[in-house]
Amino acid sequence: MRPVAVLGIGQTVIDEHWDKSLREIAGEAAFAAIQDAAVEHPEALFVGNMLSPLIGGQNQLGTFIADWVGMWRAEAVKIEAACGSGAAAFRQGLIAVASGEIETALVVGVEKMTDKAGHDVTAALATAADADYELEQGISFVGLNALIMRRYMYEFGWKHADFAPFSINAHANAMHNPYARLHDKITLDQFEKSSMVATPINLLDASPIGDGAAAVILVPAEKVSSMPGRPRICVAGSASATDTIAIHSRKDPLFLSAAYQSSRRAYEMAGVGREDIDFFELHDAFSIMSALSLEACGYAERGQGPRLGLDNEIRINGGKLPICTRGGLKARGHPVGATGMYQIVEVVQQLRGECGRGQVDGARIGMAQNIGGSGATILTHILKAE
Amino acid sequence: MRPVAVLGIGQTVIDEHWDKSLREIAGEAAFAAIQDAAVEHPEALFVGNMLSPLIGGQNQLGTFIADWVGMWRAEAVKIEAACGSGAAAFRQGLIAVASGEIETALVVGVEKMTDKAGHDVTAALATAADADYELEQGISFVGLNALIMRRYMYEFGWKHADFAPFSINAHANAMHNPYARLHDKITLDQFEKSSMVATPINLLDASPIGDGAAAVILVPAEKVSSMPGRPRICVAGSASATDTIAIHSRKDPLFLSAAYQSSRRAYEMAGVGREDIDFFELHDAFSIMSALSLEACGYAERGQGPRLGLDNEIRINGGKLPICTRGGLKARGHPVGATGMYQIVEVVQQLRGECGRGQVDGARIGMAQNIGGSGATILTHILKAE
Repeated sequence: MRPVAVLGIGQTVIDEHWDKSLREIAGEAAFAAIQDAAVEHPEALFVGNMLSPLIGGQNQLGTFIADWVGMWRAEAVKIEAACGSGAAAFRQGLIAVASGEIETALVVGVEKMTDKAGHDVTAALATAADADYELEQGISFVGLNALIMRRYMYEFGWKHADFAPFSINAHANAMHNPYARLHDKITLDQFEKSSMVATPINLLDASPIGDGAAAVILVPAEKVSSMPGRPRICVAGSASATDTIAIHSRKDPLFLSAAYQSSRRAYEMAGVGREDIDFFELHDAFSIMSALSLEACGYAERGQGPRLGLDNEIRINGGKLPICTRGGLKARGHPVGATGMYQIVEVVQQLRGECGRGQVDGARIGMAQNIGGSGATILTHILKAE
Repeated sequence: MRPVAVLGIGQTVIDEHWDKSLREIAGEAAFAAIQDAAVEHPEALFVGNMLSPLIGGQNQLGTFIADWVGMWRAEAVKIEAACGSGAAAFRQGLIAVASGEIETALVVGVEKMTDKAGHDVTAALATAADADYELEQGISFVGLNALIMRRYMYEFGWKHADFAPFSINAHANAMHNPYARLHDKITLDQFEKSSMVATPINLLDASPIGDGAAAVILVPAEKVSSMPGRPRICVAGSASATDTIAIHSRKDPLFLSAAYQSSRRAYEMAGVGREDIDFFELHDAFSIMSALSLEACGYAERGQGPRLGLDNEIRINGGKLPICTRGGLKARGHPVGATGMYQIVEVVQQLRGECGRGQVDGARIGMAQNIGGSGATILTHILKAE
């Protein structure tokens, strides 16, 4: 396979976009990426989306968006892997360009979630879990994550407040991201007193949904030159791995084995060690997921993920491994099928040095990890500035 | 890209499988393909499916099926392009193997449609069309196709009975396919007197839905040798193209431009002309689609598609271009997201010479064409026996 570069990026503000349709927000991100890349006619479109059939009554989103952005006749397809749909679409676009089949690919992650009532969205999100054996019990998706968090706290002796640094860090970082859904700094006191959602997960452990789209243009790296003030951004590592769909089928429900697998493959492909990663956009859909992701990727011993937050190792300023540098799912927001693409776009922003007060100084290698379901599908990508 | 071979195939009977779950029928086809290929651990799974979120309440079908068939840790993803989902998944698996990223890929097309009432299925199928501008008018998917057929009959002067040979041929061929949903020969009289669905489309113009799954194993061609009685089957041509999602946006709603584009690219890639194709598994969801597909692929002049049927050119015995040799969508059945994979499996069966009384004599090059929506996404694949 030939090396692939991210030539352009685009994203919309994550919000309740009641005045815009799904195709409009997808188009906004796509046109921004096309303009940023200064390309004219991408040959193929890869769309990541989870909920459009259920919430928008719309399938065939590849062609639907290709039509809207004027990519007539182009190849187009939709990829779905629950909340991992964004990175899954990115990986298919990456392989298509790396293979030589496609010269210029547009990848768009898009989700429009706020057009329906909350209980409808909760039911739609639950389709990420096992319908026959998990949902059959009446559990919701946040409920599944709550069971994991409760067990983790019991096994390893953490209290709820120990997870606070993950959310506080994410909210602090989102202050400098104009595309983020939330711009409120939060305190430990607020974290502890927030409304309960599903014990022990409260509102400030959980990421907000939203409407949004993020997009990139992928081209063969050989066609891109570094320019002054704008390095060439290459995809150095890409891997996808799976675990059982139902949590109860896992030997160890407190270990993200698909994060372990995909991160190790990505490190190997990129020729780096975990210590070489300058920052990490992880999938903090719930605060417990931050801890589990850090452990599986080799940054903390089993059961010790929260320690990194408590020791200030995850902050942009002074931390050994800044995470969620643009706000993470927690504060940038979690438009589910778009989230993996927001992470990629944010890694590119950091590697270009475009993050202003939220910039990770000297960032050269960034990692993004996108999770579908409660650890069932996990994709890890490593990007390098050259 | 390196050449890719289809090493194994598997399929289930298409029926109302009320006694089996989606994962069970997917597993049945997958295990059959794995056994046929005599491989042990496919590295990656590509699933084509359209309706599982809407009918089964299940998303993330890549991982869901990988888990069921024991592909723990393997990469897995779902691809959706409405009724073109099967071939779209095949093409993603093909590119992944061709690129060198994957050595052994399992591709499964699966659909479970009969668990809900007919009006729910009709509503779910309509998500292939444009929700904002077509469905908003209250039209169904068959309704859209009926508008196309009515206009075609008006423009080119055909009467309804002129489309009968497409259905009669499909039903006759399905008699020799044990996996087909229907095994009833039909006559012109039955065709003309069948119940109306949406004028002018009656029950015998329309393909039946059903539950089913079809699967293949893809490997690099260099790893496969021809054996006595079992040639090596290579993917010689693969292309995907799109048109506008809504029919009213097309300059000419009676021409499948995405079939034209994707067939021309596939001919070029395979280094063949249309006259080299020994048989053609086309997407006869409705009889009008057979005519339009034959025209767009270069086998008939504009407006003259029905002529091929009337002149007996589409039959297995004696026709210049046998079509729907295993029954087509019309009689083999149309489990929507699985259909494109059934077509690929059937092409392989013909090229291997495994079709018994339904065999196309001396078949060396076969073509399959899968359509998403009413012509919005069209994939064409050409396979060769070597």
